[in-house]
Amino acid sequence: MPEPSSRGYASGRRRRDQVVSAAFTAFGTVGYRQTSMSQIAADCGVSRAGLFHHFPTKESLLEAVLDERDRRHSLRFFEGAPGPGRDGLDHFARLVALTGANATTPGIVSLYAVLSAEATDPAHPAHAYFVRRYENSRRHLTMAFEDLRSRGLLRDPSVDGLRLAEEIIAIMDGLQIQWLLSPTAVDMPGRLRERLSEIIRVDLPDVPPTPAAEV
Amino acid sequence: MPEPSSRGYASGRRRRDQVVSAAFTAFGTVGYRQTSMSQIAADCGVSRAGLFHHFPTKESLLEAVLDERDRRHSLRFFEGAPGPGRDGLDHFARLVALTGANATTPGIVSLYAVLSAEATDPAHPAHAYFVRRYENSRRHLTMAFEDLRSRGLLRDPSVDGLRLAEEIIAIMDGLQIQWLLSPTAVDMPGRLRERLSEIIRVDLPDVPPTPAAEV
Repeated sequence: MPEPSSRGYASGRRRRDQVVSAAFTAFGTVGYRQTSMSQIAADCGVSRAGLFHHFPTKESLLEAVLDERDRRHSLRFFEGAPGPGRDGLDHFARLVALTGANATTPGIVSLYAVLSAEATDPAHPAHAYFVRRYENSRRHLTMAFEDLRSRGLLRDPSVDGLRLAEEIIAIMDGLQIQWLLSPTAVDMPGRLRERLSEIIRVDLPDVPPTPAAEV
Repeated sequence: MPEPSSRGYASGRRRRDQVVSAAFTAFGTVGYRQTSMSQIAADCGVSRAGLFHHFPTKESLLEAVLDERDRRHSLRFFEGAPGPGRDGLDHFARLVALTGANATTPGIVSLYAVLSAEATDPAHPAHAYFVRRYENSRRHLTMAFEDLRSRGLLRDPSVDGLRLAEEIIAIMDGLQIQWLLSPTAVDMPGRLRERLSEIIRVDLPDVPPTPAAEV
């Protein structure tokens, strides 16, 4: 039987996870700015004091929600991956799979679209997070294209890798808006796969994601 | 000298324009949800009663701001244009010029990015506006690509026009986010022009916009 202190730690951890999970849902449906801390406390059945013990500010909770989204994506789609610079084909196959999974969670996609747009304001609490996130994405996709170039897998070997990285990230972001507005008209993973097949000489491999239930 | 009633109409119209202009600025800098009607009234020096006479709800003011943005864009970039279905080259040249001009108005680009993401929520007051707007954009760009196909100007004549339309709109939207987050790193009109030059066999013509001062 664990000591009282570690039981306390485990139950505190569990409560923190419940808060993040409730905030994840609320931010994804009602939106970050429209959700109050009181509402989140009520949603997960903790007291306001309990909520503020874990998250003294709404901004700190937002950060935890963004980290949680990245953690879930990373576990489901990039666990055990060789990395973009070591296998660009594998990396793009994982991106297509991730886009397909996003097409089943409109609330979270919408949260991300609203937040990334709001966070372009330098005064927004998630500004630094998004600047860093996009820098990392551009770097990873550039590495993936450089790997493909070195293996002779780009149809146009003279194309600029960073330019393609910016374009592919833009397509993924832009398709989200069109898909959220007209879900039945726009096929996000299909469009992404088609564009990649114009750039890459060979078919992307199949990389089945880890089932959501296991992460 | 005009009759009193028409003078009243002209000054009412002028006041309405002042309100729309102040709202345009406030929504573009502070954001739609964060701006209050009282703040807009104060910004343009009209009474709250005067403001509500012209715009009974904040939603009706938002609609006027979106219409004003479209009116300015249309006057500056599409005045006298033959139309996308009659001259696809001309249409894409105008889109590149519009993107270049957007790169000088981050506040309005940011307003548009936040609003289009927020408006993916079916309960948002601008939802119907954005659904219609994207449907129109896809239709116009598809017409422009069909015109280019019929004139033998597509590098790949078998490519699907609607797919390209969705992709180009996505690139324009997605690049806005990356550019707003890293203005010096991302060249919006340059990227758009490069992608179009991969699709279209010939260079886009120069279409100098009408100077902003004249619209």
